Amino acid sequence: MALIVHKYGGTSMGSTERIRNVAKRVAKWSRAGHQMVVVPSAMSGETNRLLALAKELAPAKADDAYHRELDQLAATGEQASSALLAIALQAEGLASVSYAGWQVAIKTNSAYTKARIESIDDARVRADLAAGKVVIITGFQGVDGQGHVTTLGRGGSDTSAVAVAAALKAQECLIYTDVDGVYTTDPRVVPEARRLKTVSFEEMLEMASLGSKVLQIRSVEFAGKYRVPLRVLSSFTPWDIDLQEEAKSGTLISFEEDENMEQAVVSGIAFNRDEAKISLLGVPDTPGIASQILGAVAQANIEVDMIIQNVSHEGKTDFSFTVHRNDFARAIDLLKSVVAAKLGAREVIGDAKICKVSIVGIGMRSHVGVASKMFRALSEEGINIQMISTSEIKTSVVIDEKYMELAVRALHKAFDLDQPPA
Amino acid sequence: MALIVHKYGGTSMGSTERIRNVAKRVAKWSRAGHQMVVVPSAMSGETNRLLALAKELAPAKADDAYHRELDQLAATGEQASSALLAIALQAEGLASVSYAGWQVAIKTNSAYTKARIESIDDARVRADLAAGKVVIITGFQGVDGQGHVTTLGRGGSDTSAVAVAAALKAQECLIYTDVDGVYTTDPRVVPEARRLKTVSFEEMLEMASLGSKVLQIRSVEFAGKYRVPLRVLSSFTPWDIDLQEEAKSGTLISFEEDENMEQAVVSGIAFNRDEAKISLLGVPDTPGIASQILGAVAQANIEVDMIIQNVSHEGKTDFSFTVHRNDFARAIDLLKSVVAAKLGAREVIGDAKICKVSIVGIGMRSHVGVASKMFRALSEEGINIQMISTSEIKTSVVIDEKYMELAVRALHKAFDLDQPPA
Repeated sequence: MALIVHKYGGTSMGSTERIRNVAKRVAKWSRAGHQMVVVPSAMSGETNRLLALAKELAPAKADDAYHRELDQLAATGEQASSALLAIALQAEGLASVSYAGWQVAIKTNSAYTKARIESIDDARVRADLAAGKVVIITGFQGVDGQGHVTTLGRGGSDTSAVAVAAALKAQECLIYTDVDGVYTTDPRVVPEARRLKTVSFEEMLEMASLGSKVLQIRSVEFAGKYRVPLRVLSSFTPWDIDLQEEAKSGTLISFEEDENMEQAVVSGIAFNRDEAKISLLGVPDTPGIASQILGAVAQANIEVDMIIQNVSHEGKTDFSFTVHRNDFARAIDLLKSVVAAKLGAREVIGDAKICKVSIVGIGMRSHVGVASKMFRALSEEGINIQMISTSEIKTSVVIDEKYMELAVRALHKAFDLDQPPA
Repeated sequence: MALIVHKYGGTSMGSTERIRNVAKRVAKWSRAGHQMVVVPSAMSGETNRLLALAKELAPAKADDAYHRELDQLAATGEQASSALLAIALQAEGLASVSYAGWQVAIKTNSAYTKARIESIDDARVRADLAAGKVVIITGFQGVDGQGHVTTLGRGGSDTSAVAVAAALKAQECLIYTDVDGVYTTDPRVVPEARRLKTVSFEEMLEMASLGSKVLQIRSVEFAGKYRVPLRVLSSFTPWDIDLQEEAKSGTLISFEEDENMEQAVVSGIAFNRDEAKISLLGVPDTPGIASQILGAVAQANIEVDMIIQNVSHEGKTDFSFTVHRNDFARAIDLLKSVVAAKLGAREVIGDAKICKVSIVGIGMRSHVGVASKMFRALSEEGINIQMISTSEIKTSVVIDEKYMELAVRALHKAFDLDQPPA
């Protein structure tokens, strides 16, 4: 008997038929003797429906009063789906109660539409669990210190589930979703992609941030911070499959580097075509140059991902970085009009038709030659590398976006990811 | 400058276009210098949509845990519509904030799906009004002492609006609805029916309880208890009509028997075909007989409306009462099996094909011969009266339901209700 948190996404909650299946699955876990807490998303489409109504009434604005109302509005989606799940569980014969974020309470800061969880009061939930109830807690939302409803941003239900699991010291947090785990890469690009039985927290963090959309990155950070064992698994298996089998399915995001951990050097290939690159050529190589360039970009609220500065030549250097493609035009304008003039850069050039491909693996820490194997595999396909960036457990390259699928397939094969690890 | 409460029903909130019109109307009042509090219902159809989902998941049950979830579910409808209205008001350039019942807080007892308001904290609302904001408060809902969401039952938004107006000592509570006021009777039955400019609180209470569906009866009771001036008016007039004209439109439910009050003897004709009558014939006329009969009925949770007991004859009497038509079969069974046997009544008979027609008027207090004029008008149409019940300001008769429209038209004419009062 353990305390287990289940999280179900919008697709899993998408109809009364599906909600009933969720209830039957949760009932199975409850009847096996587990204390169950369930964090559902809104029924699929509901959040978009509500926000579309808001958009019909007013153009998006940056002010707090407007964002407060968006949160007050959007939070109703999870409150409704949670109550429906409680009703479905009661129909299965289980005692059940649903709580909105403010009822728990899940306290957040006041950053409407992208709030951060500050604390979770576990008293009420523990009392209900002790009384034999299945407790349902709305995902995606909380309440600030002044009693205003807040939401955590898209995908925030994952974060809610992990935070609840951390507060309750749950044995495991199971994220039921429409994929059956974390793969070595996107199976739509590489049909031979293989599901990973376990992945380390750090690898998952790199995968999530690099564009594998299985889990919201903040939920992974949260799980890492509080060491919550996290499992991603399919909500589309029949609800009545054997519990032991289900409990081992999907991908476990593990914090223990135990013996059973897969010992591959590279665990997966991530990719992302949401970025654009910008280069300032012939910048004077003086102290503080990077902060002058990036400070101006940050002030314009543009997020920067990869940053490259190579050794200088005759007192001049080239400085490159990548931004989200949506910010590309604005960043180029900014740099041309302000920064380049002030810094005396020779030229500002940019390219939005790029992609980033990364190899990720905790095994890279203790293996040499991994990066050069990557570069060789790309070169054998005739793919030119435009930028390189490395960290302890990943190596990323920027290449022409037209080569993205080719590069991913080549790397997947080069690192034998289609084969189970020895 | 005054503090004014507006209440808008589901039809008035039924689309973003209509919500925008509500916002423009409220903005007009705000710009005229009034402090505005708005209580909206859920968008029309939304509450039914949510409850239908619940019904798909579980059959209706009598237990508290189930009703708690129904309230948690249904309350989302008003939270969403309130946030949308706040957004629409902001788009009109007004500062605005929306609150769910728990945020105000509107405290209720724990009778889920039919909770009663116990108190309203006005501090937060007053602070917002003082800061120049339009405050929107969800209708229909509150929160109990343990932080569970409650709803007030169908039509509860009227009650919310009146309760908020009472708590804030508002100058007037305007109920915008899809009819343009209170009529002498239903215009669908009597095309000559006339809108009343004012109606007394007591008359309105009788009208509401007798089947005129303009206002929820509890909201009228609440208004009476706290002496909140209440106005029923149309939400379908153009939002930009002159404010002074709008402020005098509809029907004012007044608590002051002032000079301007219409001096008609009878103000309106109410009717209702939701009832059925039951008679116990030949009941021994001993003390406590009525309480024995009605006690058993009440224990079965069946509400009784009219009760008639005539003088006894040879130690036996006949005892009649009416119940809601939905409870008719159950009441008959109960009386046959239990009560009649125990009481030694000769026979239990019932009839569901009846209707109740009432004349209502505060002027009846000081006028004699009103009832006999009613009976004469019915007799002239050959309508047989089955039961009669009177109170200070109304006289009700039970007749065969096939005569309902005929009776209402005859009475409307007999009391000159198609003519404005002298």
